[in-house]
Amino acid sequence: MHVEAKLTELGLELPEPMRLPASVSVRWRQVKVIGDRAVIAGHGPRQPDGTPSRGGKIGSDLTPDAGYEAARSTALAVLGDLKREVGDLDRVVAWVRVFGLVNSAPGFVGQARVIDGFTDLMVSLYGEEIAICPRAVAGAAELPFNSPVIIEGEVALAS
Amino acid sequence: MHVEAKLTELGLELPEPMRLPASVSVRWRQVKVIGDRAVIAGHGPRQPDGTPSRGGKIGSDLTPDAGYEAARSTALAVLGDLKREVGDLDRVVAWVRVFGLVNSAPGFVGQARVIDGFTDLMVSLYGEEIAICPRAVAGAAELPFNSPVIIEGEVALAS
Amino acid sequence: MHVEAKLTELGLELPEPMRLPASVSVRWRQVKVIGDRAVIAGHGPRQPDGTPSRGGKIGSDLTPDAGYEAARSTALAVLGDLKREVGDLDRVVAWVRVFGLVNSAPGFVGQARVIDGFTDLMVSLYGEEIAICPRAVAGAAELPFNSPVIIEGEVALAS
Repeated sequence: MHVEAKLTELGLELPEPMRLPASVSVRWRQVKVIGDRAVIAGHGPRQPDGTPSRGGKIGSDLTPDAGYEAARSTALAVLGDLKREVGDLDRVVAWVRVFGLVNSAPGFVGQARVIDGFTDLMVSLYGEEIAICPRAVAGAAELPFNSPVIIEGEVALAS
Repeated sequence: MHVEAKLTELGLELPEPMRLPASVSVRWRQVKVIGDRAVIAGHGPRQPDGTPSRGGKIGSDLTPDAGYEAARSTALAVLGDLKREVGDLDRVVAWVRVFGLVNSAPGFVGQARVIDGFTDLMVSLYGEEIAICPRAVAGAAELPFNSPVIIEGEVALAS
Repeated sequence: MHVEAKLTELGLELPEPMRLPASVSVRWRQVKVIGDRAVIAGHGPRQPDGTPSRGGKIGSDLTPDAGYEAARSTALAVLGDLKREVGDLDRVVAWVRVFGLVNSAPGFVGQARVIDGFTDLMVSLYGEEIAICPRAVAGAAELPFNSPVIIEGEVALAS
């Protein structure tokens, strides 16, 4: 496999499925396939065992670089869930859209660079032609469970 | 009808079409069908006569439980508009995506539980297989007309 | 051409491609065509030469009317990028969805009217049947590069 081979080459591992505290009911699916579309839920960064990474606001609790790393970690979480749903990461023929929300301290306007952590990893795995896609980014006042970023989107699958 | 029968069983009624002050021009459609996709505009909670429910921020003006109820009320508003557009709520074969914005007081991070009010109602009507879908939630600094939640999304229709 | 003729009639010109400071890596595409869908990235207002318009929050730095103008300017930026990608603006047969984020000062709840600046221009070019579509609007705590609005969306193309 192309993408999985690149992950290995880069020394990266996909995290376990999301593990939230037992008090949280998970009323969503991480990925759902509708025809040749795979729709991706809002994801945050995860540790290898599936528990959430450290939360906080970029620009106060966390540096922009830590935000970039959180977005990169979110990319791995997305890929893990995508693999569990569609079987083979090489089925992705195009990234369709990405929407990234950054938990932002007042005055922080560097959201684009933070979400680059997500995009840069996808580009290193899929190449620019497949991975570069329409993207919107925004600062959020608060994010669920104080996640530093939440990223959702959609990919097109080979039919 | 399956879904309408369940609504009756649960003692629920769909609200009237949205009624905003005459000063507001409504420059959007609540639901638009494109092929087998029905795209749903951002909705807020409505009273039975279509006027907006009480506004405010969750975590200060309104409790998280009131936020949950607002999201549940929003689900009824969505179903009312969906029925008016597609005729029969049983035409929905899958929820494709849900994006929920929660008008959040500083420090409030319980957005997921608030939007569960929307999802839980959809599950009680459509079942988990159809209703559980990729979802993203975020806290918004401010929402239009001070709405406590705004929820948009997409469903797939039987062709 | 219908839409381009109307632009000329209205005395409007589409701006140049986005021009950000050299320090910003642009890790997204403004428009991507997937089958008969054209997916549109988050756009902000642009000056004719492609550089960003004045930033700021609506309700403090900028008036609601300036926000409306920013959303109208954003519509022109979107049309410029759409034209570069699909060749002919008349290929748009339906606006599918619009999501507008408004950089909002605390207490500002007039987001819908701001985003009307985008919708009103699209209606004057495409007419209500094509241009009016599901729309969601929200206030953002902060937006990238302090943009006053960010608008993303999707259109359907003639096949």
